[in-house]
Amino acid sequence: MLSPCRIVLMHTSHPGNIGAAARAMKTMGFKELYLVSPKVFPATKAYEMASGALDVLENAKVVANLEDAIHDCSLIVGTSARDRKIPWPKLTPRDFAQRINQETHHKIAILFGCEQSGLTNEALQQCHYHLSIPTASEYSSLNLAAAVQIIVYELCIANLAPITSMSDNVYATYGDVNNFYAHLEAILIKINFLNPKVPRQLMTRLRRLFNRARLDVMEVNILRGILNAIEMKMKP
Amino acid sequence: MLSPCRIVLMHTSHPGNIGAAARAMKTMGFKELYLVSPKVFPATKAYEMASGALDVLENAKVVANLEDAIHDCSLIVGTSARDRKIPWPKLTPRDFAQRINQETHHKIAILFGCEQSGLTNEALQQCHYHLSIPTASEYSSLNLAAAVQIIVYELCIANLAPITSMSDNVYATYGDVNNFYAHLEAILIKINFLNPKVPRQLMTRLRRLFNRARLDVMEVNILRGILNAIEMKMKP
Repeated sequence: MLSPCRIVLMHTSHPGNIGAAARAMKTMGFKELYLVSPKVFPATKAYEMASGALDVLENAKVVANLEDAIHDCSLIVGTSARDRKIPWPKLTPRDFAQRINQETHHKIAILFGCEQSGLTNEALQQCHYHLSIPTASEYSSLNLAAAVQIIVYELCIANLAPITSMSDNVYATYGDVNNFYAHLEAILIKINFLNPKVPRQLMTRLRRLFNRARLDVMEVNILRGILNAIEMKMKP
Repeated sequence: MLSPCRIVLMHTSHPGNIGAAARAMKTMGFKELYLVSPKVFPATKAYEMASGALDVLENAKVVANLEDAIHDCSLIVGTSARDRKIPWPKLTPRDFAQRINQETHHKIAILFGCEQSGLTNEALQQCHYHLSIPTASEYSSLNLAAAVQIIVYELCIANLAPITSMSDNVYATYGDVNNFYAHLEAILIKINFLNPKVPRQLMTRLRRLFNRARLDVMEVNILRGILNAIEMKMKP
């Protein structure tokens, strides 16, 4: 699903942003970069900022006008921070990522305007959708490469399975954890911390605490070991 | 919900990344930036890259060590690209954003390591969760400010959804929990369960266990009470 997407940067002023955008793309699995009349390119600063994404920069296509960057694409979307005179169908990056996952395209072009003023009205009118990245109302001026990063991230996520959290050990059985609670309770009584005649909610609170942690086998062994060591050290 | 989040950048090498991170934060409504021993700061390059987020930079707190950046926080999360020896509970930025929307916190610290090597194992072990940004397998090296951008973006987006707060407990602060760990360690040495000359991974495993459970204020008090009771009962 990721391969059909092409990133198109229009009239970029700062070559460092081109390099940073290339890096952003590659971290999310995107490689196809078009540059429409960049102000300065190639440039050392672009290569510095690209870090390990030099291949994306080296394969970037520099073209003279938007037409040459999108003529073979079947879906064109433009990123735009502000509302324009003529409202266009608007999507968040997340909605867009979900939508294109359900469609078949030869090529999808995602357009980014220049740092100062974004996409021109003329470019925006070539688009099927406008993408608008949600921001704080007080300050919405995303750096160009940061905007690219968010959009390729959303596209990448839409295509990825979630990461599952893990433990390096097997979870302890109910029986083993229960034996630990019994042992703990016995020790708490012996050290006079728990009065069996007035137990209050102490064991309930401790059970809730350890259940929340989901003890694994090794942890139960450590805790049982600590209880044994306490017993050995106790006054007769 | 956004105000409790603090971004903590540790040992940042390039001041431009500090500025770009400040800009990323402000576009998503975040303002609290801590810098743990930055290599170069303040610096012209940081101010250039901050663009309209100069206020975030100017109010950034520079501290000497991690402890000073997180002592008043009740939830600490660390960003980490690679898996470590002892696996920690791991979340994607999206899962994390949804999760903290359902909890009550005074302060949440989100830690970012230096550009070259990320967070140290020591810093990662202070955390309740590790955040892992999904990336392409071929190239996963996100720029520091790009990583900040993705995480604050997810937090910002999550806040657009309705918030339901359901915790009735106040979580313990990092400082209080750390005092508990110090007390626990001292007791484990006294009862001969922990050999300070061969500590192995014992304290790391116990930290991970209790961090996973996310201790609240009352639970810390109970645990400290148990440690005191053990001391009272010990043979001289």
